Amino acid sequence: MDTRTAYREHLAEMARFASALALLGWDQHAHMPKKGGVFRAQVTAMLAQMHFERGVSDDLGRYLDELKSDTSLSEAEAGSVRRIGKEYKREKAIPPALIAEVAAARSEAQQAWAQARQASDFSMFKPHLEKMVDYGRRFADYYTYDEHPYDGLLEGFEPGMTVNQLHEIIEPLRAQTVPFLKKLLDEGEAPDPSLLTGTFDVDVQRKLAHRALEAVGYDFDAGALDDVPHPFTTSIGPDDVRVTNRYAPDYLGSGLFAALHEGGHAIYNQGMPTDLFLLGIPGGSSNGIHESQSRMIENQIGRSLPFWRFFQPILAEYFPQFSDASPDDLYRASNHVSPSLIRVEADEVTYNFHIMLRFELEAGLIDGSIRVADLPRLWNEAMERYVGVVPENDAVGVLQDVHWSMGAFGYFPSYMLGNLYAAQLFDTLRQGRPNLDEEIASGDFTGLLGWLREHVHQYGAIYEPTELMTRVTGKPLDSSHFVNYIQDKFSAVYKVK
Amino acid sequence: MDTRTAYREHLAEMARFASALALLGWDQHAHMPKKGGVFRAQVTAMLAQMHFERGVSDDLGRYLDELKSDTSLSEAEAGSVRRIGKEYKREKAIPPALIAEVAAARSEAQQAWAQARQASDFSMFKPHLEKMVDYGRRFADYYTYDEHPYDGLLEGFEPGMTVNQLHEIIEPLRAQTVPFLKKLLDEGEAPDPSLLTGTFDVDVQRKLAHRALEAVGYDFDAGALDDVPHPFTTSIGPDDVRVTNRYAPDYLGSGLFAALHEGGHAIYNQGMPTDLFLLGIPGGSSNGIHESQSRMIENQIGRSLPFWRFFQPILAEYFPQFSDASPDDLYRASNHVSPSLIRVEADEVTYNFHIMLRFELEAGLIDGSIRVADLPRLWNEAMERYVGVVPENDAVGVLQDVHWSMGAFGYFPSYMLGNLYAAQLFDTLRQGRPNLDEEIASGDFTGLLGWLREHVHQYGAIYEPTELMTRVTGKPLDSSHFVNYIQDKFSAVYKVK
Repeated sequence: MDTRTAYREHLAEMARFASALALLGWDQHAHMPKKGGVFRAQVTAMLAQMHFERGVSDDLGRYLDELKSDTSLSEAEAGSVRRIGKEYKREKAIPPALIAEVAAARSEAQQAWAQARQASDFSMFKPHLEKMVDYGRRFADYYTYDEHPYDGLLEGFEPGMTVNQLHEIIEPLRAQTVPFLKKLLDEGEAPDPSLLTGTFDVDVQRKLAHRALEAVGYDFDAGALDDVPHPFTTSIGPDDVRVTNRYAPDYLGSGLFAALHEGGHAIYNQGMPTDLFLLGIPGGSSNGIHESQSRMIENQIGRSLPFWRFFQPILAEYFPQFSDASPDDLYRASNHVSPSLIRVEADEVTYNFHIMLRFELEAGLIDGSIRVADLPRLWNEAMERYVGVVPENDAVGVLQDVHWSMGAFGYFPSYMLGNLYAAQLFDTLRQGRPNLDEEIASGDFTGLLGWLREHVHQYGAIYEPTELMTRVTGKPLDSSHFVNYIQDKFSAVYKVK
Repeated sequence: MDTRTAYREHLAEMARFASALALLGWDQHAHMPKKGGVFRAQVTAMLAQMHFERGVSDDLGRYLDELKSDTSLSEAEAGSVRRIGKEYKREKAIPPALIAEVAAARSEAQQAWAQARQASDFSMFKPHLEKMVDYGRRFADYYTYDEHPYDGLLEGFEPGMTVNQLHEIIEPLRAQTVPFLKKLLDEGEAPDPSLLTGTFDVDVQRKLAHRALEAVGYDFDAGALDDVPHPFTTSIGPDDVRVTNRYAPDYLGSGLFAALHEGGHAIYNQGMPTDLFLLGIPGGSSNGIHESQSRMIENQIGRSLPFWRFFQPILAEYFPQFSDASPDDLYRASNHVSPSLIRVEADEVTYNFHIMLRFELEAGLIDGSIRVADLPRLWNEAMERYVGVVPENDAVGVLQDVHWSMGAFGYFPSYMLGNLYAAQLFDTLRQGRPNLDEEIASGDFTGLLGWLREHVHQYGAIYEPTELMTRVTGKPLDSSHFVNYIQDKFSAVYKVK
């Protein structure tokens, strides 16, 4: 068997393990009964171990080595060799004993975090977080980095991104959006968000979410929509990309925008060629690029006036109380800006502030300039500085996110980058489809989907973010697109100049 | 590591593979999107192969050999060694090349069967069935047998059962129930089944099925209820036993009795100690004993007057049109006897006739006394003789069941044995709980469940059917219990003497 064939078979076998693991994970959140968790953990651990072993095997290393200079590979194969090659190097850099040690510590840290959040007592989490930060530093060293240890961690979520680049991206963003938020709140005329509140049957909301997903081009013959406490999207196979969602009985926006968000992730994965799945790169260019697809469908599309022109009559079919609601009122109600404590509930204007403060704190933890003991105080100070509100306890402050308990340092920036990528991609998309607003208002999403498929989805992980952005928009990430988008949109909604 | 520990670890690893496979299978029928099937087949095949390899490994053979005379084993361990030892011998008896060959032929036969049934054209299926029969004979030879080749196949579904025993069981059964059916139809006063027909919202039916399952003691914290085209129950873990169901929009009995049937299977599996799952014997004593648990909950309980005394007010909560229905009318409507063409729709009186004719035909196919070409004619003749109706085409006749296309010769008798075991067990149960009717009528199923747990469920596959029946009821299977049950019940319902 030639090396290319052997490589493909090796990756296809890993893809089969990954599929079983994705199903086990999906089921665990969507359907598994309470008592099923104990044994499930053993099943998952066994298959994850088998998958991991194949990901660090000497055979794979040899294939990667032989293929990295093979010019006869297809674009997808070459992309796979690059990506898997990087992952292989990172996986191999960590001593196996450390991996097992961290897995055990992570499990304890997650439990401690959940209890600490429940009790709103940071001290219960502190020793575990100190341990996870220490592991984070050690991982960064093993991964190696040029400038800042955090770069070694960032690479795992946002290939090519560095602390220095992030500072360069954040500075102008902060300089323009922090005063803009203040201006909106001080001088603007806030829209009435109450239109989307009330009592909404969850079964009907689920049908509405189904309808919205269909509208944006999600293929239910290659997917499914299930209920979970925390929505996510998962690829169980190349033609099996499932969306999960949750619904608030008293707020329609919760379930609807979450469905559109996950739908954005899902159409990205559905738009990738099967070959990428079989070649071991079933995800997108990066976490941030993936998030750009979900945020674009959620915000640039879902929270737009053209969308509500299309969707108001559909909404009224499911909830007749909206028969007389105007698209403009629904649009405005969807764009209420409200500085709040919780990241996942943040509006488009304040969302990035939540990320900036997390990035500053975790970069400081990893380079040693911030001590875990000081986190609650630093968190609250940064919340006041950026968002203008201060948590009354740690449960709704420094303890709100699961990420640090998992040792997932470097993950948060992707959320902000997603917003920035989305705005920049959307500007290019608009240039290519000048009638986009009319298309969306008439319920025709094929132009939107076609553009995303052609310029983003089909490439999956073949290109890293900077290369992808340059190919599609002509330049690397530039946060001015986001700043302009936010200022234009919310100046109009809030009637400020 | 001592052999006992090594054996336990080997079986626990196999149980983890079996769990993943059960989840893949459950998902395939309950949730997987249409396009997901192609890749799913590859994932399932890979894990099935890994599971199979461990089931025929030399290590396992050595453990079994060393442990079979180890008197220090627990009852569960000894039961596992007996059962797994038998399975091991059977698996090893078949040449590996033949297994792969049959898998391919089975896949083709199943497709041909589906197409033949669609077209109601037996000739399309005939060459495939001939092939499957031939494999059946070869398997019987490999498995070995004392009296009749079919015995070698029966053993895989009903350990210890033989053709001769089946004839001895069937003869008196036939002699008494065939004329009894005729008497019912000729002289009886048929109850009105229309009470359970109408228009019934499927979402509400699903909630009713949920309520019925809760009532009989199914633990939803260790299970789930999902929709599928063909209901089944599956053990995904020792504390994760899932029920699936389907609902007819125009007939309430379809979804309700299927739920109770699957609930009977499910409480059996939920009632087994975790250790049996980990020791590789997650199922019951036999297919027939498993079926006895489902049939008892469906028929002896669900189609009883005490059940309807309890359940009528609950039914009326979900479907108010039943507010004035009497428990007796519901009981009678649930027990309408109607000779029909389709096994899975058969009532309690005629069900066994469908099995008897399949048993006669497939035993004849395997011993060579019946040719595949003659099957449609022989089927129709037997239908007329037993049930009194003749299929107008093969789709609703000889082509109705999937089993033969899978080469599952020897499976059918379990369905009949389940009815017989159920009646015999239920007589013993009644002796132990003289107030059972009052308990059920008041909605107290704890006595029923407790008895089944104590006498049947907890033993899982530790005892083979004859040993289990003898332990519980004091004697091996005796069909007179079923005959008496049917005659008493339906004489009353049909008001015949």
